Amino acid sequence: MVDSLVRLRDALREFAAARDWDQFHTPRNLATALSVEAAELLEPFQWLTDAEADRLPPETRAAVEQEMADVLLYLVRLADRMGVDLEQAALAKIELNAAKYPADKVRGSARKYDRQ
Amino acid sequence: MVDSLVRLRDALREFAAARDWDQFHTPRNLATALSVEAAELLEPFQWLTDAEADRLPPETRAAVEQEMADVLLYLVRLADRMGVDLEQAALAKIELNAAKYPADKVRGSARKYDRQ
Amino acid sequence: MVDSLVRLRDALREFAAARDWDQFHTPRNLATALSVEAAELLEPFQWLTDAEADRLPPETRAAVEQEMADVLLYLVRLADRMGVDLEQAALAKIELNAAKYPADKVRGSARKYDRQ
Amino acid sequence: MVDSLVRLRDALREFAAARDWDQFHTPRNLATALSVEAAELLEPFQWLTDAEADRLPPETRAAVEQEMADVLLYLVRLADRMGVDLEQAALAKIELNAAKYPADKVRGSARKYDRQ
Repeated sequence: MVDSLVRLRDALREFAAARDWDQFHTPRNLATALSVEAAELLEPFQWLTDAEADRLPPETRAAVEQEMADVLLYLVRLADRMGVDLEQAALAKIELNAAKYPADKVRGSARKYDRQ
Repeated sequence: MVDSLVRLRDALREFAAARDWDQFHTPRNLATALSVEAAELLEPFQWLTDAEADRLPPETRAAVEQEMADVLLYLVRLADRMGVDLEQAALAKIELNAAKYPADKVRGSARKYDRQ
Repeated sequence: MVDSLVRLRDALREFAAARDWDQFHTPRNLATALSVEAAELLEPFQWLTDAEADRLPPETRAAVEQEMADVLLYLVRLADRMGVDLEQAALAKIELNAAKYPADKVRGSARKYDRQ
Repeated sequence: MVDSLVRLRDALREFAAARDWDQFHTPRNLATALSVEAAELLEPFQWLTDAEADRLPPETRAAVEQEMADVLLYLVRLADRMGVDLEQAALAKIELNAAKYPADKVRGSARKYDRQ
Protein backbone atom coordinates (compact mmCIF):
# COMPACT_ATOMS: atom_id res chain seq x y z
CA MET A 1 0.00 0.00 0.00
CA VAL A 2 1.46 3.35 -0.99
CA ASP A 3 1.15 6.03 1.67
CA SER A 4 -1.47 8.67 0.85
CA LEU A 5 0.87 11.67 0.98
CA VAL A 6 3.43 9.85 -1.17
CA ARG A 7 0.73 8.82 -3.63
CA LEU A 8 -0.51 12.39 -3.96
CA ARG A 9 3.02 13.73 -4.30
CA ASP A 10 3.74 11.32 -7.13
CA ALA A 11 0.44 12.00 -8.88
CA LEU A 12 1.14 15.74 -8.77
CA ARG A 13 4.67 15.27 -10.07
CA GLU A 14 3.31 13.36 -13.02
CA PHE A 15 0.53 15.91 -13.57
CA ALA A 16 2.96 18.83 -13.61
CA ALA A 17 5.53 17.02 -15.77
CA ALA A 18 2.92 16.11 -18.41
CA ARG A 19 1.99 19.81 -18.67
CA ASP A 20 5.46 21.28 -18.26
CA TRP A 21 4.15 23.25 -15.30
CA ASP A 22 7.10 22.81 -12.95
CA GLN A 23 8.26 26.21 -14.15
CA PHE A 24 5.20 27.84 -12.57
CA HIS A 25 5.39 25.86 -9.35
CA THR A 26 7.80 28.08 -7.49
CA PRO A 27 7.48 28.12 -3.69
CA ARG A 28 6.05 31.61 -3.74
CA ASN A 29 3.47 30.80 -6.41
CA LEU A 30 2.42 27.65 -4.59
CA ALA A 31 2.21 29.38 -1.21
CA THR A 32 0.08 32.09 -2.83
CA ALA A 33 -2.24 29.59 -4.48
CA LEU A 34 -2.55 27.65 -1.22
CA SER A 35 -3.52 30.82 0.61
CA VAL A 36 -6.16 31.69 -1.98
CA GLU A 37 -7.64 28.19 -1.77
CA ALA A 38 -7.69 28.34 2.03
CA ALA A 39 -9.78 31.52 1.80
CA GLU A 40 -12.11 29.84 -0.69
CA LEU A 41 -12.52 27.04 1.85
CA LEU A 42 -13.39 29.60 4.53
CA GLU A 43 -15.78 31.53 2.29
CA PRO A 44 -18.87 29.28 2.61
CA PHE A 45 -18.60 29.34 6.42
CA GLN A 46 -18.17 33.07 6.88
CA TRP A 47 -21.75 34.03 7.71
CA LEU A 48 -22.89 30.71 9.16
CA THR A 49 -23.56 29.82 12.76
CA ASP A 50 -21.94 26.62 14.00
CA ALA A 51 -25.29 24.88 13.75
CA GLU A 52 -25.73 25.93 10.12
CA ALA A 53 -22.19 24.83 9.31
CA ASP A 54 -23.07 21.36 10.55
CA ARG A 55 -25.84 20.94 8.01
CA LEU A 56 -24.43 22.34 4.80
CA PRO A 57 -26.53 21.87 1.66
CA PRO A 58 -25.09 19.01 -0.44
CA GLU A 59 -23.74 21.28 -3.18
CA THR A 60 -21.98 23.52 -0.62
CA ARG A 61 -20.51 20.48 1.07
CA ALA A 62 -19.24 19.17 -2.27
CA ALA A 63 -17.64 22.55 -2.97
CA VAL A 64 -16.03 22.55 0.48
CA GLU A 65 -14.56 19.10 -0.19
CA GLN A 66 -13.04 20.37 -3.43
CA GLU A 67 -11.51 23.36 -1.66
CA MET A 68 -10.05 21.04 0.98
CA ALA A 69 -8.58 18.96 -1.82
CA ASP A 70 -7.08 22.07 -3.45
CA VAL A 71 -5.43 23.09 -0.18
CA LEU A 72 -3.94 19.63 0.27
CA LEU A 73 -2.72 19.42 -3.32
CA TYR A 74 -0.93 22.77 -3.20
CA LEU A 75 0.53 21.90 0.20
CA VAL A 76 1.84 18.53 -1.02
CA ARG A 77 3.28 20.19 -4.12
CA LEU A 78 4.95 22.93 -2.09
CA ALA A 79 6.44 20.38 0.29
CA ASP A 80 7.78 18.38 -2.65
CA ARG A 81 9.20 21.51 -4.25
CA MET A 82 10.95 22.48 -1.00
CA GLY A 83 12.03 18.99 0.01
CA VAL A 84 9.93 18.98 3.17
CA ASP A 85 8.63 15.71 4.68
CA LEU A 86 5.08 16.76 5.51
CA GLU A 87 4.27 13.86 7.81
CA GLN A 88 7.43 14.35 9.86
CA ALA A 89 6.87 18.10 10.02
CA ALA A 90 3.30 17.57 11.22
CA LEU A 91 4.25 14.98 13.83
CA ALA A 92 7.00 17.27 15.10
CA LYS A 93 4.50 20.12 15.35
CA ILE A 94 2.08 17.98 17.36
CA GLU A 95 4.90 17.28 19.81
CA LEU A 96 5.73 20.97 20.05
CA ASN A 97 2.08 21.78 20.68
CA ALA A 98 1.83 19.06 23.33
CA ALA A 99 4.72 20.65 25.21
CA LYS A 100 3.26 24.14 24.76
CA TYR A 101 -0.24 23.22 25.87
CA PRO A 102 0.04 20.60 28.66
CA ALA A 103 -3.27 18.74 28.85
CA ASP A 104 -3.63 19.20 32.60
CA LYS A 105 -3.17 22.95 32.37
CA VAL A 106 -5.38 23.88 29.41
CA ARG A 107 -8.19 21.34 29.63
CA GLY A 108 -11.40 22.79 28.28
CA SER A 109 -10.05 26.29 28.03
CA ALA A 110 -9.90 28.40 24.92
CA ARG A 111 -7.48 30.64 26.78
CA LYS A 112 -4.47 28.83 25.41
CA TYR A 113 -5.51 29.89 21.98
CA ASP A 114 -5.08 33.51 22.94
CA ARG A 115 -1.49 34.29 22.12
CA GLN A 116 -1.67 37.76 23.57
CA MET B 1 2.38 0.70 8.49
CA VAL B 2 -0.34 3.19 9.29
CA ASP B 3 -1.09 5.66 6.53
CA SER B 4 0.24 9.15 7.22
CA LEU B 5 -3.10 10.97 7.00
CA VAL B 6 -4.73 8.36 9.23
CA ARG B 7 -1.89 8.59 11.72
CA LEU B 8 -2.17 12.38 11.88
CA ARG B 9 -5.94 12.20 12.20
CA ASP B 10 -5.67 9.82 15.13
CA ALA B 11 -2.92 11.84 16.82
CA LEU B 12 -5.06 14.98 16.57
CA ARG B 13 -8.12 13.19 17.91
CA GLU B 14 -6.13 12.11 20.94
CA PHE B 15 -4.62 15.58 21.34
CA ALA B 16 -8.01 17.28 21.30
CA ALA B 17 -9.67 14.69 23.54
CA ALA B 18 -6.92 15.02 26.18
CA ARG B 19 -7.57 18.77 26.30
CA ASP B 20 -11.34 18.72 25.84
CA TRP B 21 -10.88 20.93 22.78
CA ASP B 22 -13.39 19.25 20.49
CA GLN B 23 -15.83 21.95 21.58
CA PHE B 24 -13.65 24.61 19.89
CA HIS B 25 -13.01 22.57 16.75
CA THR B 26 -16.09 23.58 14.84
CA PRO B 27 -15.79 23.57 11.04
CA ARG B 28 -15.86 27.35 10.92
CA ASN B 29 -13.20 27.75 13.61
CA LEU B 30 -10.96 25.20 11.92
CA ALA B 31 -11.41 26.73 8.47
CA THR B 32 -10.57 30.14 9.94
CA ALA B 33 -7.46 28.84 11.68
CA LEU B 34 -6.37 27.07 8.50
CA SER B 35 -6.73 30.28 6.53
CA VAL B 36 -4.69 32.25 9.07
CA GLU B 37 -1.94 29.61 8.99
CA ALA B 38 -1.90 29.63 5.18
CA ALA B 39 -1.27 33.38 5.26
CA GLU B 40 1.51 32.87 7.80
CA LEU B 41 3.03 30.38 5.38
CA LEU B 42 2.82 32.96 2.59
CA GLU B 43 4.23 35.77 4.72
CA PRO B 44 7.96 34.93 4.46
CA PHE B 45 7.71 34.72 0.67
CA GLN B 46 5.81 37.95 0.05
CA TRP B 47 8.72 40.23 -0.85
CA LEU B 48 11.12 37.59 -2.17
CA THR B 49 12.12 36.89 -5.72
CA ASP B 50 11.92 33.26 -6.82
CA ALA B 51 15.71 33.02 -6.54
CA GLU B 52 15.65 34.31 -2.96
CA ALA B 53 12.83 31.92 -2.07
CA ASP B 54 15.04 29.05 -3.17
CA ARG B 55 17.72 29.85 -0.63
CA LEU B 56 15.84 30.72 2.51
CA PRO B 57 17.93 31.25 5.65
CA PRO B 58 17.73 28.14 7.86
CA GLU B 59 15.56 29.78 10.53
CA THR B 60 13.08 31.03 7.90
CA ARG B 61 12.96 27.59 6.37
CA ALA B 62 12.30 26.02 9.77
CA ALA B 63 9.46 28.52 10.33
CA VAL B 64 8.03 27.71 6.90
CA GLU B 65 8.06 24.00 7.72
CA GLN B 66 6.13 24.68 10.91
CA GLU B 67 3.54 26.73 9.05
CA MET B 68 3.15 23.93 6.51
CA ALA B 69 2.62 21.55 9.41
CA ASP B 70 -0.01 23.86 10.91
CA VAL B 71 -1.91 24.00 7.63
CA LEU B 72 -1.88 20.21 7.34
CA LEU B 73 -2.95 19.68 10.94
CA TYR B 74 -5.94 22.02 10.69
CA LEU B 75 -6.89 20.49 7.35
CA VAL B 76 -6.75 16.94 8.71
CA ARG B 77 -8.75 18.01 11.76
CA LEU B 78 -11.38 19.77 9.64
CA ALA B 79 -11.69 16.74 7.37
CA ASP B 80 -12.15 14.49 10.38
CA ARG B 81 -14.72 16.85 11.89
CA MET B 82 -16.67 16.91 8.62
CA GLY B 83 -16.27 13.24 7.75
CA VAL B 84 -14.31 13.94 4.57
CA ASP B 85 -11.81 11.42 3.20
CA LEU B 86 -8.96 13.76 2.29
CA GLU B 87 -7.04 11.34 0.10
CA GLN B 88 -10.11 10.42 -1.93
CA ALA B 89 -11.11 14.09 -2.26
CA ALA B 90 -7.60 14.99 -3.46
CA LEU B 91 -7.42 12.12 -5.95
CA ALA B 92 -10.86 13.07 -7.30
CA LYS B 93 -9.69 16.67 -7.69
CA ILE B 94 -6.60 15.60 -9.63
CA GLU B 95 -8.90 13.72 -12.01
CA LEU B 96 -11.12 16.76 -12.39
CA ASN B 97 -8.09 18.94 -13.11
CA ALA B 98 -6.76 16.43 -15.63
CA ALA B 99 -10.04 16.67 -17.56
CA LYS B 100 -10.10 20.46 -17.25
CA TYR B 101 -6.51 20.96 -18.38
CA PRO B 102 -5.69 18.35 -21.04
CA ALA B 103 -1.91 17.95 -21.20
CA ASP B 104 -1.73 18.38 -24.96
CA LYS B 105 -3.67 21.63 -24.87
CA VAL B 106 -2.04 23.48 -21.98
CA ARG B 107 1.55 22.27 -22.12
CA GLY B 108 3.91 24.94 -20.84
CA SER B 109 1.26 27.62 -20.74
CA ALA B 110 0.26 29.62 -17.70
CA ARG B 111 -2.83 30.62 -19.64
CA LYS B 112 -4.89 27.80 -18.19
CA TYR B 113 -4.38 29.31 -14.80
CA ASP B 114 -6.26 32.38 -15.85
CA ARG B 115 -9.85 31.67 -14.99
CA GLN B 116 -11.09 34.83 -16.59
CA MET C 1 -9.23 69.98 4.28
CA VAL C 2 -7.55 67.24 2.29
CA ASP C 3 -9.64 64.10 1.90
CA SER C 4 -8.41 61.20 4.04
CA LEU C 5 -7.83 58.74 1.19
CA VAL C 6 -6.01 61.41 -0.82
CA ARG C 7 -3.89 62.32 2.19
CA LEU C 8 -2.93 58.70 2.79
CA ARG C 9 -2.19 58.17 -0.89
CA ASP C 10 0.15 61.16 -0.93
CA ALA C 11 1.86 60.18 2.32
CA LEU C 12 2.52 56.69 0.92
CA ARG C 13 3.85 58.08 -2.35
CA GLU C 14 6.30 60.19 -0.43
CA PHE C 15 7.22 57.30 1.86
CA ALA C 16 7.96 54.97 -1.06
CA ALA C 17 9.81 57.61 -3.07
CA ALA C 18 12.10 58.45 -0.15
CA ARG C 19 13.07 54.78 0.09
CA ASP C 20 13.08 53.95 -3.61
CA TRP C 21 10.52 51.26 -2.90
CA ASP C 22 8.25 51.81 -5.90
CA GLN C 23 10.14 49.00 -7.58
CA PHE C 24 8.79 46.53 -5.01
CA HIS C 25 5.25 47.88 -5.07
CA THR C 26 3.97 45.85 -7.99
CA PRO C 27 0.24 45.05 -7.97
CA ARG C 28 0.92 41.41 -7.19
CA ASN C 29 3.28 42.19 -4.32
CA LEU C 30 0.84 44.69 -2.85
CA ALA C 31 -2.14 42.35 -3.21
CA THR C 32 -0.11 39.62 -1.52
CA ALA C 33 0.93 41.90 1.35
CA LEU C 34 -2.66 43.09 1.77
CA SER C 35 -3.87 39.50 1.99
CA VAL C 36 -1.26 38.63 4.61
CA GLU C 37 -2.21 41.67 6.69
CA ALA C 38 -5.91 40.81 6.43
CA ALA C 39 -5.13 37.38 7.91
CA GLU C 40 -3.13 39.01 10.69
CA LEU C 41 -6.18 41.14 11.40
CA LEU C 42 -8.33 38.01 11.59
CA GLU C 43 -5.85 36.10 13.75
CA PRO C 44 -6.73 37.61 17.16
CA PHE C 45 -10.44 36.90 16.60
CA GLN C 46 -10.15 33.32 15.44
CA TRP C 47 -10.93 31.52 18.71
CA LEU C 48 -13.04 34.22 20.32
CA THR C 49 -16.77 34.28 20.87
CA ASP C 50 -18.54 37.46 19.78
CA ALA C 51 -18.79 38.52 23.42
CA GLU C 52 -15.03 38.09 23.92
CA ALA C 53 -14.32 39.99 20.71
CA ASP C 54 -16.25 42.94 22.12
CA ARG C 55 -13.96 43.28 25.11
CA LEU C 56 -10.49 42.79 23.72
CA PRO C 57 -7.59 43.43 26.11
CA PRO C 58 -6.05 46.87 25.36
CA GLU C 59 -2.87 45.45 23.85
CA THR C 60 -4.84 43.16 21.52
CA ARG C 61 -7.03 46.06 20.51
CA ALA C 62 -3.97 48.18 19.76
CA ALA C 63 -2.56 45.36 17.63
CA VAL C 64 -5.87 45.05 15.77
CA GLU C 65 -5.85 48.78 15.03
CA GLN C 66 -2.37 48.46 13.56
CA GLU C 67 -3.42 45.56 11.37
CA MET C 68 -6.42 47.56 10.16
CA ALA C 69 -4.02 50.39 9.31
CA ASP C 70 -1.77 47.99 7.41
CA VAL C 71 -4.69 46.72 5.34
CA LEU C 72 -5.76 50.27 4.49
CA LEU C 73 -2.24 51.37 3.61
CA TYR C 74 -1.63 48.48 1.22
CA LEU C 75 -5.05 48.97 -0.30
CA VAL C 76 -4.50 52.70 -0.88
CA ARG C 77 -1.08 51.95 -2.34
CA LEU C 78 -2.44 49.26 -4.64
CA ALA C 79 -5.23 51.57 -5.82
CA ASP C 80 -2.70 54.31 -6.55
CA ARG C 81 -0.46 51.87 -8.39
CA MET C 82 -3.36 50.67 -10.53
CA GLY C 83 -5.01 54.05 -11.03
CA VAL C 84 -8.19 53.06 -9.20
CA ASP C 85 -10.35 55.67 -7.45
CA LEU C 86 -11.10 53.82 -4.23
CA GLU C 87 -13.96 56.01 -3.08
CA GLN C 88 -15.74 55.80 -6.43
CA ALA C 89 -15.19 52.03 -6.59
CA ALA C 90 -16.60 51.62 -3.07
CA LEU C 91 -19.63 53.82 -3.74
CA ALA C 92 -20.32 51.92 -6.96
CA LYS C 93 -20.10 48.63 -5.04
CA ILE C 94 -22.58 49.84 -2.44
CA GLU C 95 -25.00 50.62 -5.25
CA LEU C 96 -24.47 47.19 -6.77
CA ASN C 97 -25.10 45.56 -3.39
CA ALA C 98 -28.22 47.64 -2.86
CA ALA C 99 -29.62 46.33 -6.13
CA LYS C 100 -28.55 42.76 -5.32
CA TYR C 101 -29.96 42.76 -1.80
CA PRO C 102 -33.19 44.80 -1.79
CA ALA C 103 -33.90 45.90 1.77
CA ASP C 104 -37.50 44.68 1.76
CA LYS C 105 -36.49 41.21 0.61
CA VAL C 106 -33.49 40.44 2.83
CA ARG C 107 -34.32 42.29 6.03
CA GLY C 108 -32.84 40.52 9.03
CA SER C 109 -31.83 37.46 7.06
CA ALA C 110 -28.34 36.05 6.76
CA ARG C 111 -29.62 34.04 3.83
CA LYS C 112 -28.57 36.62 1.31
CA TYR C 113 -25.02 36.07 2.37
CA ASP C 114 -25.15 32.52 1.15
CA ARG C 115 -24.05 32.68 -2.45
CA GLN C 116 -24.82 29.06 -3.06
CA MET D 1 -17.30 68.19 1.13
CA VAL D 2 -17.73 65.11 3.27
CA ASP D 3 -14.55 63.10 3.78
CA SER D 4 -14.48 59.87 1.77
CA LEU D 5 -14.03 57.51 4.74
CA VAL D 6 -16.80 59.28 6.64
CA ARG D 7 -19.08 59.16 3.61
CA LEU D 8 -18.50 55.42 3.18
CA ARG D 9 -18.99 54.79 6.89
CA ASP D 10 -22.33 56.59 6.83
CA ALA D 11 -23.48 54.87 3.64
CA LEU D 12 -22.69 51.48 5.18
CA ARG D 13 -24.48 52.35 8.41
CA GLU D 14 -27.57 53.21 6.42
CA PHE D 15 -27.23 50.09 4.26
CA ALA D 16 -26.98 47.79 7.28
CA ALA D 17 -29.76 49.55 9.20
CA ALA D 18 -32.17 49.28 6.25
CA ARG D 19 -31.55 45.51 6.17
CA ASP D 20 -31.29 44.91 9.91
CA TRP D 21 -27.83 43.45 9.31
CA ASP D 22 -26.02 45.00 12.24
CA GLN D 23 -26.64 41.73 14.05
CA PHE D 24 -24.37 39.92 11.57
CA HIS D 25 -21.68 42.58 11.56
CA THR D 26 -19.72 41.38 14.55
CA PRO D 27 -15.99 42.15 14.52
CA ARG D 28 -15.14 38.51 13.93
CA ASN D 29 -17.58 38.15 11.04
CA LEU D 30 -16.33 41.35 9.44
CA ALA D 31 -12.67 40.43 9.87
CA THR D 32 -13.42 37.05 8.31
CA ALA D 33 -15.25 38.58 5.37
CA LEU D 34 -12.45 41.10 4.86
CA SER D 35 -9.88 38.30 4.78
CA VAL D 36 -11.91 36.34 2.22
CA GLU D 37 -12.24 39.42 0.02
CA ALA D 38 -8.51 40.12 0.27
CA ALA D 39 -7.83 36.62 -1.04
CA GLU D 40 -10.30 37.18 -3.88
CA LEU D 41 -8.36 40.34 -4.71
CA LEU D 42 -5.13 38.33 -4.77
CA GLU D 43 -6.62 35.50 -6.83
CA PRO D 44 -6.38 37.09 -10.31
CA PHE D 45 -2.71 37.94 -9.75
CA GLN D 46 -1.54 34.59 -8.45
CA TRP D 47 -0.09 33.13 -11.64
CA LEU D 48 0.78 36.37 -13.40
CA THR D 49 4.15 37.91 -13.97
CA ASP D 50 4.51 41.57 -13.03
CA ALA D 51 4.32 42.48 -16.71
CA GLU D 52 1.07 40.57 -17.17
CA ALA D 53 -0.38 42.15 -14.03
CA ASP D 54 0.21 45.56 -15.59
CA ARG D 55 -1.99 44.83 -18.57
CA LEU D 56 -5.00 43.04 -17.12
CA PRO D 57 -7.86 42.34 -19.50
CA PRO D 58 -10.67 44.90 -18.90
CA GLU D 59 -13.03 42.39 -17.29
CA THR D 60 -10.31 41.20 -14.90
CA ARG D 61 -9.48 44.76 -14.02
CA ALA D 62 -13.15 45.51 -13.34
CA ALA D 63 -13.34 42.46 -11.07
CA VAL D 64 -10.19 43.59 -9.25
CA GLU D 65 -11.72 47.01 -8.66
CA GLN D 66 -14.78 45.39 -7.14
CA GLU D 67 -12.66 43.25 -4.84
CA MET D 68 -10.74 46.35 -3.75
CA ALA D 69 -14.08 48.01 -3.00
CA ASP D 70 -15.19 44.97 -0.97
CA VAL D 71 -12.02 45.09 1.11
CA LEU D 72 -12.48 48.79 1.81
CA LEU D 73 -16.16 48.42 2.68
CA TYR D 74 -15.57 45.63 5.19
CA LEU D 75 -12.64 47.54 6.66
CA VAL D 76 -14.67 50.73 7.08
CA ARG D 77 -17.52 48.74 8.60
CA LEU D 78 -15.20 46.93 11.02
CA ALA D 79 -13.59 50.20 12.06
CA ASP D 80 -17.01 51.72 12.69
CA ARG D 81 -18.11 48.66 14.65
CA MET D 82 -14.97 48.83 16.82
CA GLY D 83 -14.85 52.61 17.16
CA VAL D 84 -11.51 52.90 15.36
CA ASP D 85 -10.57 56.09 13.48
CA LEU D 86 -9.10 54.56 10.33
CA GLU D 87 -7.36 57.67 9.07
CA GLN D 88 -5.67 58.32 12.40
CA ALA D 89 -4.67 54.68 12.73
CA ALA D 90 -3.18 54.72 9.22
CA LEU D 91 -1.29 57.98 9.76
CA ALA D 92 0.09 56.64 13.06
CA LYS D 93 1.22 53.47 11.27
CA ILE D 94 3.03 55.47 8.61
CA GLU D 95 4.92 57.28 11.37
CA LEU D 96 5.80 53.98 13.02
CA ASN D 97 7.05 52.61 9.70
CA ALA D 98 9.07 55.75 9.05
CA ALA D 99 10.88 55.24 12.36
CA LYS D 100 11.32 51.52 11.70
CA TYR D 101 12.66 51.94 8.18
CA PRO D 102 14.80 55.11 8.06
CA ALA D 103 15.03 56.25 4.45
CA ASP D 104 18.80 56.59 4.49
CA LYS D 105 19.26 53.03 5.77
CA VAL D 106 16.85 51.06 3.61
CA ARG D 107 16.91 52.95 0.34
CA GLY D 108 16.28 50.61 -2.56
CA SER D 109 16.61 47.49 -0.49
CA ALA D 110 13.99 44.78 -0.15
CA ARG D 111 15.95 43.52 2.83
CA LYS D 112 13.94 45.55 5.28
CA TYR D 113 10.92 43.60 4.25
CA ASP D 114 12.45 40.44 5.57
CA ARG D 115 11.34 40.27 9.16
CA GLN D 116 13.42 37.22 9.88
